[in-house]
Amino acid sequence: MIGVDWGTSSCRAYRMTGAGQIIARASSPSGILQVAAGAFPSVLRAIVGDWLADGETTIILCGMVGSRQGWVEAPYLPCPADPAAIGAALVRVPFDGADVWLIPGLSDRDEAGTPEVMRGEETQIIGALDAIGPSGLVCLPGSHSKWAHIDAGRIAGFRTYFSGEAFAALRGGTILGRMMDDAPHDSGAFARGVARSADGGHLLHQLFGVRSLALFGELTTAQTASYLSGLLIGHEIRAAMPAGAAVHLIGAAGLCGLYAEAIALCAGHAILVDEDAAAHGLARVGHARSAV
Amino acid sequence: MIGVDWGTSSCRAYRMTGAGQIIARASSPSGILQVAAGAFPSVLRAIVGDWLADGETTIILCGMVGSRQGWVEAPYLPCPADPAAIGAALVRVPFDGADVWLIPGLSDRDEAGTPEVMRGEETQIIGALDAIGPSGLVCLPGSHSKWAHIDAGRIAGFRTYFSGEAFAALRGGTILGRMMDDAPHDSGAFARGVARSADGGHLLHQLFGVRSLALFGELTTAQTASYLSGLLIGHEIRAAMPAGAAVHLIGAAGLCGLYAEAIALCAGHAILVDEDAAAHGLARVGHARSAV
Repeated sequence: MIGVDWGTSSCRAYRMTGAGQIIARASSPSGILQVAAGAFPSVLRAIVGDWLADGETTIILCGMVGSRQGWVEAPYLPCPADPAAIGAALVRVPFDGADVWLIPGLSDRDEAGTPEVMRGEETQIIGALDAIGPSGLVCLPGSHSKWAHIDAGRIAGFRTYFSGEAFAALRGGTILGRMMDDAPHDSGAFARGVARSADGGHLLHQLFGVRSLALFGELTTAQTASYLSGLLIGHEIRAAMPAGAAVHLIGAAGLCGLYAEAIALCAGHAILVDEDAAAHGLARVGHARSAV
Repeated sequence: MIGVDWGTSSCRAYRMTGAGQIIARASSPSGILQVAAGAFPSVLRAIVGDWLADGETTIILCGMVGSRQGWVEAPYLPCPADPAAIGAALVRVPFDGADVWLIPGLSDRDEAGTPEVMRGEETQIIGALDAIGPSGLVCLPGSHSKWAHIDAGRIAGFRTYFSGEAFAALRGGTILGRMMDDAPHDSGAFARGVARSADGGHLLHQLFGVRSLALFGELTTAQTASYLSGLLIGHEIRAAMPAGAAVHLIGAAGLCGLYAEAIALCAGHAILVDEDAAAHGLARVGHARSAV
């Protein structure tokens, strides 16, 4: 089978055995925002055409390709949801002779009734369920970090944190960025930011402190970006993680490394999950579909 | 005497009687960032030259003109500080035949030891001291909002909140801005944002909710900016204002009106202070200097 993780800014494809082992990989910078309306079939053909010609007949897609801005919209499936429920909710997509299926995103509501959505992360979580076990806490860091609770083998619910995109906007669009070099990660400054997130006051007050510390020479221009990153990630972790919890981290190694550092500083315990979680999830949902 | 409030992006000058009554006003878009090195005297001459020719001999300056990027740096005076202490700490600036004095900014340290700074706001607060009385809480909304405690007629200490600049960056540089029209202020959506700031979760989580509410049609593109504004201002007020407090608001009428709305929603009591607080403060510090 073929699994494709098709997000906003990139597309990753995997050719896998029936048991879910990866035989071949392909990737493309054609994220859904780069694909013109109606061009999804031709872009997919360019990426996985050789594998289809070689006998593959099933393609499972996940990610923003199933959003309103994507190929075909796959309505959100509400939490709690398990692989079987997700496998039963796939959306069929007409494409040449192959059997092409879209994995729906998941939705939830937080305590205040505000909607929550994910697209693509549910597949990564499913791919990590063997590592996580029947219950646990998962974090997928990113522009919009997702924190999901696994309970009885199901994705019970999740919360999103805007930390990654807030960091980029604060760095790129405020006076804070003018005090930052393009310096490499500074662990000490990052840890100071994480520690600061536990102090009184409020994030909106502490953000001004990034400027005043730099102004008073208590942060160098090489340290300021790492400090701000630690401050935001620290706030996110303290809000999302019960004290002393174990957190399974899924995502790119660099960002997961930062989160692991911060989780340890917040008295939590980080467990890094295999980077191929998306491929494993695509295979597992493909199997769940066949079983329907 | 002449008082000049010279900030980052504008310059406002007042000609006043000895008793502090405003006789004439002048303003210029030449904020300190628009003034080339060495050009401060000529810019000032262009703004207040007529008044000097007409017999004025004393000029008191406040604001970022006394910063490192300004005309002459006036070192920060630490809190607590009263008008007499500030009047005794003025910095003399050489300028033609006139007596020109810079009001220093104030500094403080928060509970965590992080530095705090203000330049210009101390003069507005001094100008509002008669309205505030010997003790009280003052808020000066803006890109970097200042909340100051007045105690025994002194500026006892203050905290800065980055809400205004964070709002601009989140609106201008993230996906949240793409869901916003240039619509007029929507009081209902603003109030929803203020209410949301009292809910559990965390600001970084609630920011994603701005997107998800829009995505689910629970906020319109005409409402989203007001909701985000209410959310950030609500967080600031709940962090800075003890429950049920009276807050003296100093600043532009539009922004102070928003804060007054939000303070009432947070069970506080807003008192709007005369918009000419800066002029009154310049006059009062001028008098304090003469008394030294």
